[in-house]
Amino acid sequence: MRQSQLFTKTAKEPPKDEFSFNAQILIRAGFIDKLFAGVYTILPLGFKVLKKIENIIREEINNIGGQEIYMPALHPIANYKKTGRDKIDVLYYTKLKNGSELVLGQSHEEIIVPLMQKFILSYKDLPKMVYQFQTKFRNELRAKSGILRGREFSMKDLYSFHKNEEDLNEYYKMAQKAYFKIFKRCGLLDLTYLTYASGGTFSKFSHEYQTITEAGEDLIYICDKCEIAINKKIIKEQSACPFCQNKKLREAKAIEVGNIFKLGNRFSHPFGFQYTAEDGSKKDVVMGCYGIGLGRTMGAITEVHHDKNGIIWPEEVAPFVASLLKIKSKNAMPAGRQEKVKNIDKISDKIYTDLQDNGVEVLYDDRDVSVGEKFADADLIGCPYRIVVSAKTLMKNCVEVKRRGSDKEELININEIINKISNY
Amino acid sequence: MRQSQLFTKTAKEPPKDEFSFNAQILIRAGFIDKLFAGVYTILPLGFKVLKKIENIIREEINNIGGQEIYMPALHPIANYKKTGRDKIDVLYYTKLKNGSELVLGQSHEEIIVPLMQKFILSYKDLPKMVYQFQTKFRNELRAKSGILRGREFSMKDLYSFHKNEEDLNEYYKMAQKAYFKIFKRCGLLDLTYLTYASGGTFSKFSHEYQTITEAGEDLIYICDKCEIAINKKIIKEQSACPFCQNKKLREAKAIEVGNIFKLGNRFSHPFGFQYTAEDGSKKDVVMGCYGIGLGRTMGAITEVHHDKNGIIWPEEVAPFVASLLKIKSKNAMPAGRQEKVKNIDKISDKIYTDLQDNGVEVLYDDRDVSVGEKFADADLIGCPYRIVVSAKTLMKNCVEVKRRGSDKEELININEIINKISNY
Repeated sequence: MRQSQLFTKTAKEPPKDEFSFNAQILIRAGFIDKLFAGVYTILPLGFKVLKKIENIIREEINNIGGQEIYMPALHPIANYKKTGRDKIDVLYYTKLKNGSELVLGQSHEEIIVPLMQKFILSYKDLPKMVYQFQTKFRNELRAKSGILRGREFSMKDLYSFHKNEEDLNEYYKMAQKAYFKIFKRCGLLDLTYLTYASGGTFSKFSHEYQTITEAGEDLIYICDKCEIAINKKIIKEQSACPFCQNKKLREAKAIEVGNIFKLGNRFSHPFGFQYTAEDGSKKDVVMGCYGIGLGRTMGAITEVHHDKNGIIWPEEVAPFVASLLKIKSKNAMPAGRQEKVKNIDKISDKIYTDLQDNGVEVLYDDRDVSVGEKFADADLIGCPYRIVVSAKTLMKNCVEVKRRGSDKEELININEIINKISNY
Repeated sequence: MRQSQLFTKTAKEPPKDEFSFNAQILIRAGFIDKLFAGVYTILPLGFKVLKKIENIIREEINNIGGQEIYMPALHPIANYKKTGRDKIDVLYYTKLKNGSELVLGQSHEEIIVPLMQKFILSYKDLPKMVYQFQTKFRNELRAKSGILRGREFSMKDLYSFHKNEEDLNEYYKMAQKAYFKIFKRCGLLDLTYLTYASGGTFSKFSHEYQTITEAGEDLIYICDKCEIAINKKIIKEQSACPFCQNKKLREAKAIEVGNIFKLGNRFSHPFGFQYTAEDGSKKDVVMGCYGIGLGRTMGAITEVHHDKNGIIWPEEVAPFVASLLKIKSKNAMPAGRQEKVKNIDKISDKIYTDLQDNGVEVLYDDRDVSVGEKFADADLIGCPYRIVVSAKTLMKNCVEVKRRGSDKEELININEIINKISNY
């Protein structure tokens, strides 16, 4: 994309009413815009990142048998009365013209259970795994963590349906592996721990995926022997790892980037969602649920991957693979360079087109702004590679390539750029 | 996809509380599920269709310079007070915990104007075109037209921003062409007319894209000379075409599948959204807006493309290109056929894998159900091609291929299927 066409602009300062680092830097770089606390518009650069995160999740969830659907955001309150969640803290309430009371979906158990009840009748119909990407509405009293805790946010929610606990446990393990693959591809694996948290009625533990960062709202204790963590909410500070009895637990602040629950019959039972078993008896369907917030994942990536100049996107979730900077210095220069400057537009345009034709996504800074502004914006936006075309590099028939976050610049012959960038 | 894995099932009868043909057939075939009147869950088959419609629209809108974003559904009512739309008929109202009043987005002018106001300062920043796919919430008193008029539905809304009316007019023409491309690719072009409708304060006319079908809620008059139509709301029954004075207008019921408006400064003015012109003066930004409902487009396609047995999907929006039916007849058969039956699982699986490996999307009916049920479901679901593998076809080393909606069946050698299907 030509940066001259992009409607957003970067800002030197974050808005004064934004206190979280993730939202500050994403707003400054033009990835998101704040409508009000906890509610953000996703701008073109942010949209590209979220779509990449979404597609990574989609691939990995499809790989473990997920079938994608799209459920409504308007929910009849009657469904919530069945599960006793009609007065939970985070609901938004609204009404149809005919007076029917509705809530906005804060999760979708109350919708997917009566839906699946229409199709799952027998043990032959199990197991089934169904997911969606859909907006969740949560009426948080305070929303001070930027896109880490929104009052409206996109989430992937997967629900699994099983004959019994054994079958759920087997799938639950597959989901755990898929989640690690997702966080690996999002560049979060090294700092993300499977974390034991409070389990509810059916299971002793639920599991969170906690990414270590100072911005985290949660406190976890990491057992480096088991390579797992325990949420502070379920452990005393001085106690040992419940699995290996290791007493040297490491405390850290962390962001919950995903969570998975064994629901058992917590939601199937209130709806009378049963199947006919092999022996003809009726049994409650056993459920699991598996969530990942998209905006929260994007926010966690910025908290973890940045330096003082801006974001450093992991390659698979970067808005573009490379920033291509056309530098037309206005300083006095030797005659040879002046000759090169004449062709710089044509050569830069050709490099841009060639890269795109070869499947390399490029943000082409063709703007008529200062050299300093181009370099600063490339660092702030944070694409993995910066390619500079200037009279100086063209004197050697080269461009200058730098990995974002590294100090090393490399001159590469303009005929070899495609090959180099594609194989970095 | 293996149909044995698909969690939905077809139904012989539509639900009793569903009166519109589009929803009846989409529910029977397992594309959508009704949560309550005007609010539907999109099931896996429907999801595939909607994603294809979405991607067609995305491609064509990107081609006319659209930049994709994603705006929130929760809107501060304060923004609506500025434009005087805080009491319009279709709003849902809700509240934050701190008492702040919100409405659910029924359209996004009140959000995109203050957003663009942050980035568009000068004539140099214009024109800009920005769009999204986002849920719209409209509190309709009645919702009896299935997915043609939802109380919650996905829509593509594009907004364009210009220096003056001339520039808007130029872009408006490009958008008109893009819309016809979209409806062509969705299989609706032949029955869709650019229709003149009421224009509001800024412009004499707005334009609707009306698709002729008996299920339509609108009445239009078609001028076959100009190849346009006029909405009944702005014309007297007996009057002539306002462009060529042709008096032989053809009356038809139609569905509004898209609409485009010249908004002028209707929304920019209340927000004081101005730009600095070439001469240094401040001028109101001139706007256009352009909508297409995704579910409504899917519904219109089913109203237009079906027979008594089911839907007939146009190829570019079909959930799968082909249904592959494995037929294991249990009837008595000659010895040669019995031999073939032994290999039918293996051969069918191979055809399925080969088709997929060659980029042909296939719904593989590998279920253990009757032959009649397989044929009926294939017709009901309505993929463009039906490929039958049976002992009878395998005797000739062939499969039987039929175009949905045609009577002609063709025997094709199993080594030539890929080639044939890819080049149909």
